[in-house]
Amino acid sequence: MKPSLVGAIEAGGTKFVCAIGTDPQNIEEIRFPTTSPEETIQKTIDFFKAKEIDSGKIQAIGIGTFGPAEVNPKSENFGWITNTPKEKWQKTDLITPIKNAFGDIPFAFDTDVNAAAWGEGRWGAAQGLDHYVYITVGTGIGGGAVNDGKILHGKNHPEMGHLRIPKDSSIDLYPGCCPFHGDCLEGLASGTAIKERWNTDPSFLPEDHKAWELESTYLADAILNLTLTLSPERFILGGGVMEQTHLFPMIRTKLNKRLAGYVEIENIDNFVLPPGLGSKSGVLGAIALAQDLTS
Amino acid sequence: MKPSLVGAIEAGGTKFVCAIGTDPQNIEEIRFPTTSPEETIQKTIDFFKAKEIDSGKIQAIGIGTFGPAEVNPKSENFGWITNTPKEKWQKTDLITPIKNAFGDIPFAFDTDVNAAAWGEGRWGAAQGLDHYVYITVGTGIGGGAVNDGKILHGKNHPEMGHLRIPKDSSIDLYPGCCPFHGDCLEGLASGTAIKERWNTDPSFLPEDHKAWELESTYLADAILNLTLTLSPERFILGGGVMEQTHLFPMIRTKLNKRLAGYVEIENIDNFVLPPGLGSKSGVLGAIALAQDLTS
Repeated sequence: MKPSLVGAIEAGGTKFVCAIGTDPQNIEEIRFPTTSPEETIQKTIDFFKAKEIDSGKIQAIGIGTFGPAEVNPKSENFGWITNTPKEKWQKTDLITPIKNAFGDIPFAFDTDVNAAAWGEGRWGAAQGLDHYVYITVGTGIGGGAVNDGKILHGKNHPEMGHLRIPKDSSIDLYPGCCPFHGDCLEGLASGTAIKERWNTDPSFLPEDHKAWELESTYLADAILNLTLTLSPERFILGGGVMEQTHLFPMIRTKLNKRLAGYVEIENIDNFVLPPGLGSKSGVLGAIALAQDLTS
Repeated sequence: MKPSLVGAIEAGGTKFVCAIGTDPQNIEEIRFPTTSPEETIQKTIDFFKAKEIDSGKIQAIGIGTFGPAEVNPKSENFGWITNTPKEKWQKTDLITPIKNAFGDIPFAFDTDVNAAAWGEGRWGAAQGLDHYVYITVGTGIGGGAVNDGKILHGKNHPEMGHLRIPKDSSIDLYPGCCPFHGDCLEGLASGTAIKERWNTDPSFLPEDHKAWELESTYLADAILNLTLTLSPERFILGGGVMEQTHLFPMIRTKLNKRLAGYVEIENIDNFVLPPGLGSKSGVLGAIALAQDLTS
């Protein structure tokens, strides 16, 4: 059976990615900067309208968004971006204007990191796993978990980027950049934090720079806590900062040391991995979420 | 319909509680110290055999155990206590000898804290909730979560007691008592840690002692991280240390401050509560787990 034509939106704070497609080998996308909600949503609608002329009716749309967002389908505000620090986007209904343009097709709406986790499970580094965590370390930090084969939501959705982790102020004088919490995980270990702490872009720091010692410690501590809470089979670490691939062995070594044998990890090298879908986990995850609505 | 007669075992490191019953108003129990596996399991069997003479055949048995334990029904070691620091109990098969005594009835087997969480959902402070966390703060610390109406397991089971949280060594000189991790949550905030740090039983420390300032900070930080990971509707805090009820408002205040408005909690007073079942959450949870097997 030919898969249904579905649309995907990866709604990011700095850029939107819109796509139609069926899988990593068959996907067409467009990227544009995130400006005002009206303009950005209109560009999104225009892309899908143009694609419908070529490819026929879109059957469902999946959205992975920056947040916080209301992802509970039972909520009357389902589909809204809620109290984001991006002022223009506070309380923005992302679904209704798109629904108005395309009629009563089904919509999936989740966080960008939950979508990315879902994409990695369908086609990437988490195929066949029931319990895993996807973390992105970029301008900010976010995480999404799959537990028992389903995206973990809770009352609304996790905010793993803001975990509180130990900081040794005698080693790290940087106070942290999170506008809410200062020295939470995102405040200490995001690309923004690395840049501010060392006054340079992370990609310019050599592999033996002590920035990476700090970075891998913070990430290992966060992964430790998530392991103790969720008992996952694997972590997938994506985002711009994780393109510094020398971080992976450093994180694995520190994590193993912290676990101290209390929780047994069969193979630490397989426990912490880069994404199988590169930078496309999110948009492909949104495709996968939309496909689930049509099957 | 009359509920089936089921048995419950709360297998603790220092004591076993065995019970038959149907609900908090109708439960008969016995408590005895945990000695060798052989002796302790035999006492358990003897209790249920005696009860069967009075009450008829037991239809299922639910077990909530200390751990780590193998709680995955698909594992060949399902029903085992695994790498516990209690040497005599390492790799102890808890189900098979009881099964041999009572025939092929169904068994539920989970951690003590998962059972307690389940009990609080059935009859206690989490009734009607789909997402919540139960934490016990006693000799050790443990936690169990319910997500989407089911006990959260992951690959095996969480070990929330060993979360790594910030420690300010200029305020707290105590190195922590966890044999695996030193200054993890259990190492810093368990009853054992309080006793060692202040050289007295926690119940002798006055309410304005700085012990409680530290204790509530550590617990608030752990609850913060669990909130950011699991997005629960409520926390239930039980165990001996939490009988110091002045801890509850202290924890709520610190947690609210740490959240800093990023995650909205509608009513912080309802967000962190004592157990509705007092010290019986675990054994009643084991009853509830067994009932689920007969319905």
